[in-house]
Amino acid sequence: MDKEIVFGHTNPDTDAVGAAMAAADYFKHQNVETEAVALGKPNEETKFALDYFHLTMPRVIEKADTEKVILVDHNEANQSVANFNDLTITHVVDHHKIDLKTDAPLFYHAEPVGCTSTILFDFYQKDQIEIPKGIAGMMLSAIISDTLLLKSPTTTDQDRKAVEQLAKIADVEDYQAYGMELLKAGTNLANRTNHDIIEGDAKSFEMNGKKVRIGQVNTVDIDEVLNRPGLKEDIEQELKTQGYDDILLVVTNILDSNSKGIFYGVDQIAVEKAFDGPVNDHIIDLPGVVSRKKQIVPNLTKEME
Amino acid sequence: MDKEIVFGHTNPDTDAVGAAMAAADYFKHQNVETEAVALGKPNEETKFALDYFHLTMPRVIEKADTEKVILVDHNEANQSVANFNDLTITHVVDHHKIDLKTDAPLFYHAEPVGCTSTILFDFYQKDQIEIPKGIAGMMLSAIISDTLLLKSPTTTDQDRKAVEQLAKIADVEDYQAYGMELLKAGTNLANRTNHDIIEGDAKSFEMNGKKVRIGQVNTVDIDEVLNRPGLKEDIEQELKTQGYDDILLVVTNILDSNSKGIFYGVDQIAVEKAFDGPVNDHIIDLPGVVSRKKQIVPNLTKEME
Repeated sequence: MDKEIVFGHTNPDTDAVGAAMAAADYFKHQNVETEAVALGKPNEETKFALDYFHLTMPRVIEKADTEKVILVDHNEANQSVANFNDLTITHVVDHHKIDLKTDAPLFYHAEPVGCTSTILFDFYQKDQIEIPKGIAGMMLSAIISDTLLLKSPTTTDQDRKAVEQLAKIADVEDYQAYGMELLKAGTNLANRTNHDIIEGDAKSFEMNGKKVRIGQVNTVDIDEVLNRPGLKEDIEQELKTQGYDDILLVVTNILDSNSKGIFYGVDQIAVEKAFDGPVNDHIIDLPGVVSRKKQIVPNLTKEME
Repeated sequence: MDKEIVFGHTNPDTDAVGAAMAAADYFKHQNVETEAVALGKPNEETKFALDYFHLTMPRVIEKADTEKVILVDHNEANQSVANFNDLTITHVVDHHKIDLKTDAPLFYHAEPVGCTSTILFDFYQKDQIEIPKGIAGMMLSAIISDTLLLKSPTTTDQDRKAVEQLAKIADVEDYQAYGMELLKAGTNLANRTNHDIIEGDAKSFEMNGKKVRIGQVNTVDIDEVLNRPGLKEDIEQELKTQGYDDILLVVTNILDSNSKGIFYGVDQIAVEKAFDGPVNDHIIDLPGVVSRKKQIVPNLTKEME
C-alpha cells in the first residue's frame, strides 16, 4: 500500500498541524498508511502546544513527495503544496468554503464548524475509536486556537462539546486556563520580524479576479503591534514585491475580541464598505471582528464582486 | 426556519430521485425543514421503483424556488438548476468528482462509492435513525441502478452491505430478482423517442475547454438500439443545434455488462485512444464498459487533456 501524506495549509496554524496529526492517526484505522507533515514551521502557539503534550513537530515539506495525499483544514490550491495539480487527493477534511476541481471521486467531508479538529473528533466518536492523549491535546489546542477559546462567531455547539471531551482525554483539568496560556504564547511577538507578523498566518484569496492577501495576528495590545517600527512600510513592500492587489493584516486582541486592520492596496473603497468605516492612514477599526473566515472574507468578497 | 429544497442532477435517474427523498428525510432529523424535488420527469426505471413502493414522484422544478438548497448526487453547476449561482448550498451529499466553488463553508460529504444512497444509508446507520420502508426501497433501487446490480466496477463493499440491509428494511425478499425487474423496466424503449434516448441520461462535461455530452442507455439488445431508425442522424442534429463539441451515447447491455458507443464530434482520435479501438461508421465497441464515471469520463478526460 502506498503511503499518503497528510497536511494542512501553508503558514500552518495549530489546527493545520493538529488536524494533520489527528487525521493521520484516524485514517490509519481506515487502513490507509499515513504520515502527518506540515507546509511550514510551527508558530509560537503551536510550539507551546507541542511542548505541553510532549510531541514532535511533523516533518516540514514544500512539495508533496507521495502521489496520493490527504488534505486537512484547506482545499484550495493557492493555500497548498507547490505541486498541488500533480497529486491525487484521496481525502479532504475541512471547515472552509470550497474551491476545488478533481478528476475523480474522493472522500470529502466538510462542515461549517469552528475547527477541523472538531470534525475529526466526531469521526473518532462515531467510529468509537480511542483518541491518543497527545493527539487529543493537539485537537483541543486547535479548537481553542481557531475559536479564540470558543468566543469567535464561528464557534458551534459541536466545538464546545469537543473541547469539553478532548480536555478530559488530554488530562487538561482547566481548559480555560490552558487556553489562555496557549493563546498568549501565540501573541509573543518579541522574537518575530515584521515579515513573520505579516506573512505568518496570511492566506491568499481570489476576489473578482483580484489577488487579496489576508493575514491575522493575535495580541494582547493592538497598539503595540500597530506601532512596530517599519511594519506599515514592510506591508507596502510585500504588496509590491509579491504582486498582490490588496493586503489586509488583521490585528486581533484576544482579551476583548476586537481588531484593527492595516490595509494597503487598490480596493480601499471596498474595504471601507465591507467593514463600515473609514481607512485612516491605512488603519481601519474592526470592532467585534475576530474571524477571517466568517467576518472578513465573506464581507470583503461581497463588496469586491 | 426557511425551507430548503433537496435535489439531484438534471435528467434524474433513480439515485437522483431516491437520494433526494432519502436526504430530505434524513436532514429533517437534523432540524432542517426540507422538501425533495427533482430536475426532470422520472425515467421508466424510476417510475417502476416509485410504483413498486407506492410512492409519489417529487415535484419537478427547473429553477430553485428557495434560497437555500441541498444537493445530492451532483455538485457541478452544469448538471444542476438554472439559477445555481444565485443559491446558498447548505449541504452536498455526493459520490462524484468535485467541481465546485462556494462563498462560504457548508456541509459537504462525498465518498468514492457506487451510489449516493449508499452514503445516506451510512448516515442513517451511524446516527441510528430508522429508515422509512418506502425510502429504503428507493435507496435500494438507486444502488441497484447505479451499480447495475452490484456488477459495475464502481461497486464497493459499502454498496453491497447497504443493498443487503436495505432489502430487509424494504421487505424485498430477493433483491436479485427485484433488481433484474427494475433494470429491465429501464430498458423498455418502446415508448421513448430517439431524443429521449439521446438526452434521457446525458450529462455535460468540460474537457480541456471542449463541451462533451455523454449519455448512457441500458438495454437487453444493443443492436436493437443501434438500428433504431434515425438515431444517428438525431445525435448529429443534437450536436449541431446544442453546440457540443462531442457527443458519446453509450449503449449498455445489462445482461452481459458490455457496451457500444455512438460517437459524433471533433475528437474521434481521443475517443479511439481512450477506448483502445476504432470508431467505424460512428460506432465504437466498448467491451466490459458499464460505468460512465469510472470507465468513460476519466479515460476520455485523460486523452483530451
